[in-house]
Amino acid sequence: MTGSGTDHTSNGLQGPSPAIILVEPQLAENIGMVARAMANFGLSDLRLVKPRDGWPTGGGLPKGAHQAASGAVHILQGAALFPDARSAIADLNLVFATTARNRGQMKRVFTPAEMMPDVAARIGSGQRVGVLFGRERTGLENDEISLADAIVTFPVNPQFASLNLAQAVLLMGYEWLRAAHGDVKPFAAETQPPARREMVVSLFDYLEDELDRGGFFPPDKREIMARNLRDILHRLEMTEQDCRTLRGAVHALSEGRRRRVKDGPPPVRPPSS
Amino acid sequence: MTGSGTDHTSNGLQGPSPAIILVEPQLAENIGMVARAMANFGLSDLRLVKPRDGWPTGGGLPKGAHQAASGAVHILQGAALFPDARSAIADLNLVFATTARNRGQMKRVFTPAEMMPDVAARIGSGQRVGVLFGRERTGLENDEISLADAIVTFPVNPQFASLNLAQAVLLMGYEWLRAAHGDVKPFAAETQPPARREMVVSLFDYLEDELDRGGFFPPDKREIMARNLRDILHRLEMTEQDCRTLRGAVHALSEGRRRRVKDGPPPVRPPSS
Repeated sequence: MTGSGTDHTSNGLQGPSPAIILVEPQLAENIGMVARAMANFGLSDLRLVKPRDGWPTGGGLPKGAHQAASGAVHILQGAALFPDARSAIADLNLVFATTARNRGQMKRVFTPAEMMPDVAARIGSGQRVGVLFGRERTGLENDEISLADAIVTFPVNPQFASLNLAQAVLLMGYEWLRAAHGDVKPFAAETQPPARREMVVSLFDYLEDELDRGGFFPPDKREIMARNLRDILHRLEMTEQDCRTLRGAVHALSEGRRRRVKDGPPPVRPPSS
Repeated sequence: MTGSGTDHTSNGLQGPSPAIILVEPQLAENIGMVARAMANFGLSDLRLVKPRDGWPTGGGLPKGAHQAASGAVHILQGAALFPDARSAIADLNLVFATTARNRGQMKRVFTPAEMMPDVAARIGSGQRVGVLFGRERTGLENDEISLADAIVTFPVNPQFASLNLAQAVLLMGYEWLRAAHGDVKPFAAETQPPARREMVVSLFDYLEDELDRGGFFPPDKREIMARNLRDILHRLEMTEQDCRTLRGAVHALSEGRRRRVKDGPPPVRPPSS
């Protein structure tokens, strides 16, 4: 988890993605954390409408934003500045507004998971789509929401519904990535095929023989107990390596028993076979 | 968005939920942000394995954790302390380990979206499930991962894969809430049924009459242009209120025109009808 796993050999997630439009964000740190969340999920188009503390033109970045971005500096450097929400959405074909509470507007309301498959299809066909996020404390004004085609809101605990700005962007990015690129894993499971059955059945035979010698089976229960053991082992879907490992473990257990019976406890741990 | 929308009249999301187990977290702020993310999505069982800077016993909380929790103090106060990962998972029936990179262990690998429907079913039937999260910089040790039944990892941009601890917990909580409670919206769309068709067709008639008077239709194109207009308006799925609003707008436009024709521009804006 965390802090690792970045694959510098990969090209990452290229191509167009939804614009993230922050309307009058108050804290530079939040803009930085938004940039990091965007980079995590392949979003790149950041638009800022009148950040409260201003925004340097000409390449510099506010210190708080730079630090909080944890390396997503390219997103901050590419951010576009706008005087109002209307100009920030001018080139977009479809606009969503985020809000955590009902504003009484007759708009369609989607969750990120509901909206993103359609958004991914539109962006794939060349449309531009953006999402408006409001001020940290007060959100979007009703007039800004009325610029949007639809509302997007988040499934949260109604008793504790306050998501911070970067977390809201993070969830939007997460659903964007899932819709556009799939629920991809950064690495695959280490898969090997299950062993051929002759190897599995041979392990059963060996284990049952050794258990016979150890007095494990009451004579009248041998059949049913052996079947139960086989069912336990079947659940493992053993690979060939698993079969060899378990065979070795059975051998060590039974050899150790024989040695104890003959010589008493071994003076040193025997090498594994 | 953000900072608003909490419904204090709701009971929130009660009932058992997966345990979030932080192994040797380094920063108290991160523990606080994890608590907030948990509260956002109805998680409540926080377990701490040897926080680097210690953890007060007897009710007090580290200042940084308290502030970063933004009110999710009940989660921090209920946090259980453990000396190691083994003891922290002792009562659980199923354990997942988070990791961002392949550890070469022969484990099943799931995304949060893949694992959570099964987790929700298990928790619904009384099983206890937990997720191990590692240290901020270095993650879980291989021995800790080997305590887990399976691995969970996050779909992220391979070029920028570093999720912080609270963001990883946030995504886990988000998928837990969706699996256990559905992709719920904190509020519904303001829905009214589409208007009865007589009202819609009457609006068409009124609009087309007024457009006739305004010279909108070339005589040989009237039929097809009227049909196109009707198609535009059909897309609105107008409610009765929509019909009244648009009827009023058509009236204001055509009355304004008549007045201009008769008197020149009106001295004051007429009241809406």
